[in-house]
Amino acid sequence: MQNVSEFNTLDPIDVNDKRVINGKADINQLAPFKYPWAWEYFLKANNNHWTPLEINMSGDVLDYKYKLSPAEIHMFENVLAYLTTADILAMRNIGLAVMEKMSAPELQIYQARQVYEESLHTWTYQHCIESLNLDQREIYNRYRTVPEIFGKIKISNQRLNKILRSDLDLSKQENVQDFILSYGFFATIFEGAWFYNGFTPIFALQRRGLMKGTGEQFQYIMRDETLHANFGIKVLRQLMSEENFAPKQEYWDEMFEECHAAEKAYANYILREPILGYNAEIHLQQYEYIVNRRAKQIGLTKVPYPNAVNAVPWLDEQTNLRKEKNFFETRVVEYKSNSSLDWEDEE
Amino acid sequence: MQNVSEFNTLDPIDVNDKRVINGKADINQLAPFKYPWAWEYFLKANNNHWTPLEINMSGDVLDYKYKLSPAEIHMFENVLAYLTTADILAMRNIGLAVMEKMSAPELQIYQARQVYEESLHTWTYQHCIESLNLDQREIYNRYRTVPEIFGKIKISNQRLNKILRSDLDLSKQENVQDFILSYGFFATIFEGAWFYNGFTPIFALQRRGLMKGTGEQFQYIMRDETLHANFGIKVLRQLMSEENFAPKQEYWDEMFEECHAAEKAYANYILREPILGYNAEIHLQQYEYIVNRRAKQIGLTKVPYPNAVNAVPWLDEQTNLRKEKNFFETRVVEYKSNSSLDWEDEE
Repeated sequence: MQNVSEFNTLDPIDVNDKRVINGKADINQLAPFKYPWAWEYFLKANNNHWTPLEINMSGDVLDYKYKLSPAEIHMFENVLAYLTTADILAMRNIGLAVMEKMSAPELQIYQARQVYEESLHTWTYQHCIESLNLDQREIYNRYRTVPEIFGKIKISNQRLNKILRSDLDLSKQENVQDFILSYGFFATIFEGAWFYNGFTPIFALQRRGLMKGTGEQFQYIMRDETLHANFGIKVLRQLMSEENFAPKQEYWDEMFEECHAAEKAYANYILREPILGYNAEIHLQQYEYIVNRRAKQIGLTKVPYPNAVNAVPWLDEQTNLRKEKNFFETRVVEYKSNSSLDWEDEE
Repeated sequence: MQNVSEFNTLDPIDVNDKRVINGKADINQLAPFKYPWAWEYFLKANNNHWTPLEINMSGDVLDYKYKLSPAEIHMFENVLAYLTTADILAMRNIGLAVMEKMSAPELQIYQARQVYEESLHTWTYQHCIESLNLDQREIYNRYRTVPEIFGKIKISNQRLNKILRSDLDLSKQENVQDFILSYGFFATIFEGAWFYNGFTPIFALQRRGLMKGTGEQFQYIMRDETLHANFGIKVLRQLMSEENFAPKQEYWDEMFEECHAAEKAYANYILREPILGYNAEIHLQQYEYIVNRRAKQIGLTKVPYPNAVNAVPWLDEQTNLRKEKNFFETRVVEYKSNSSLDWEDEE
C-alpha cells in the first residue's frame, strides 16, 4: 500500500514503473498507459452493456411448467444453483483477491467493470429464479447440500484463499507462484471452462426451442466471461513475462487433474439421466476440448487431453449472438448502435 | 474470511445472521435479502446507466480554446486534476477497503456497481482530457505538485489507510469506530460534499453556456455520486444501529474541521481569481450548506455550520438533468425508456 503522507513535488510517472504485480508507479494516475490493450478491453466491455430485464422470460415460465422432463428440470436447477454461487465467487476473486495486487490503474479499471459484470450475472440468476418462481433459499443453498456442486466450489475457495490476504508478499517467488496458479485457475478453468462450457447444457435446451429466455441471458453472460478469460490470460502471460517466472508444467497438470475430477462428478450428477441430444459424456468431452484451448493460450506446449474433440460443434454457431437472434427472431438489444453483438474467443 | 473446506449439509441461511459488518451468514447466498433497499439501489443505479461517449464535446473544444479566461482555465484544469485522483481513490475505498468487510451479498452487489461507476467517472475525465487535448501526464500528476489539491487527497488517504487492512478486527470497538469514521468520511464529505459541491464551479460555466459537454458529463457523475452518498449514509445508520455504537460528536467535529480547512485552501486556490458569477466565498458557503445536510442525514443533532445558507440556489434546478436537457436542447440519453433522468438527494 503506497502511502502519500507528506507533500512532495514529484515528476509525472515513468510508464516503465508500472507492472502487473510489484508495480512502483503511483497508483492514482491512469495515464500514461503501459497496457493500452487493457483500456481497449474496458471500452469493449462497456460497449457490450446489457441487463437481464431486456430479455423476455415469459416463454420459459411455460416451458418450465409444462414442457421440461424431470431430467431436464434436474439439470436446469442444478446448473442454476452452481452458477449462483460461482458468480459471487468470481466477483470476490477479482474484487477482493486480485484488484489490489494489480495496481496499474488501467488493469484495475477493467477489473472494476469485470466485478460489476459478475454482479450483473448474479442479478440475472436472481431474475431467472424469480421469473420461474423457484425456491430461492433452497437454490442458493444447494452448493452446501449437493457434494457434486460443492466439489467445484471447494477447489475455487482453496485457490482464492491462498492469495486473498492483502499483505501477501509478492516479492517471494513461492507467493508469486501461488498467485499465478490461482489467477490462472480462475482465468482458464473457472471462467474459461466452467463458465464457458457450463452453459452448454442450457444451450442444448435452447437449441430445441426450450428455455429460450434463459438461454439468451446465458449467451450474454458467456460473452462477458469469454472476455474475462481472454483478458485474464493476457494478463497472466504479461505477468509471467515481467516476473520472468512460470510454474512448472506439473503444477498445471495437478490443477487440470483435480478440476477434471470435480467436473466429471458434476457432469454425472447434473446429467445423471441424459437429456435429448446431450449427456454427461458429451459435456466432459467438450470440457476437455476447451481446457486444451486454454492450456495453449497460457503458453503450455503439452495439452492435458491430446485426444479431445469438439463434441458440440453447434456451440460456436449458437453462441454467436447475432445469428442466434435471427434464428429465434427475438429482438436484438444493443446499447450503442455501433456495437456488435458477436464476439470472438481468441485462439 | 469464511472457509468452506469440508462438505457439510447445511440449512439455508437465517436472514438475521446477515449484518453490515461482523455478519455470520454464508457470504455466497444473495437471497433471502435482509436489506431489500440495497437491492433497490442496485436496480436504480443500473437504470441510470450512461457512458461519456454519449455526450458531444465539440463545443467544449472551442470554448476552451477561444472563450475561457485564464482564471476560468486555471479553475477548470485544477478541478479536473482533483477529480482524476479523487475518483480512483473512491474506487479503491469501496473496492478494497469496504466491500470485503460488508459481507452481505446485497450490499456487495451495489458496491460492485459503485466501484464500476467510479471507473466510468475516471473514463469520463480521461475522455475530457483527450477531447481538450490537455497534457494528461501533467494533469494526473498535479495532485503531487499542487499542495491545495494534495491537502484533500492526503486526508482521504489517511482515512482509507486506517481501515484498508483486510484482517482489521471488527470485533474491537476502536476499530469499529475507525471504520465508521472512515466510511462516514467517504459517504458524507468525500462523495457527499467534495464531489457534490466540487462540480459547482464547472456548472457555473455551464450556466453561462460554456463547457456544456463537460457540464453535462459532470451532471451524470453527480447523479451517481448523490446515490453513493445516500446509500453510504443509509448503510452507516444501519451499521451504527446494529453495532449499537456511534462515535462521539467530537470525532465528527474534528473531521468537519480538518476537511473544512482543506476545502477552504482548495477553494482559494482554484478560484484565486473569481470567475463571472462564482468565487471562493460562494464555493465555501455552499460546501458548508451541503455538509450540514450530511450531518443531519447521519443523525447528528448539532450541525457544524448553523449559519450556512444555500449560496447557489440555481444548483438544484440545474442539476435536475431533465430540465437541463430542455434548456440546452441537447439530446436526452436514457438507457431504458422508462428510466427517469432526474434524481433526488434524500433529505
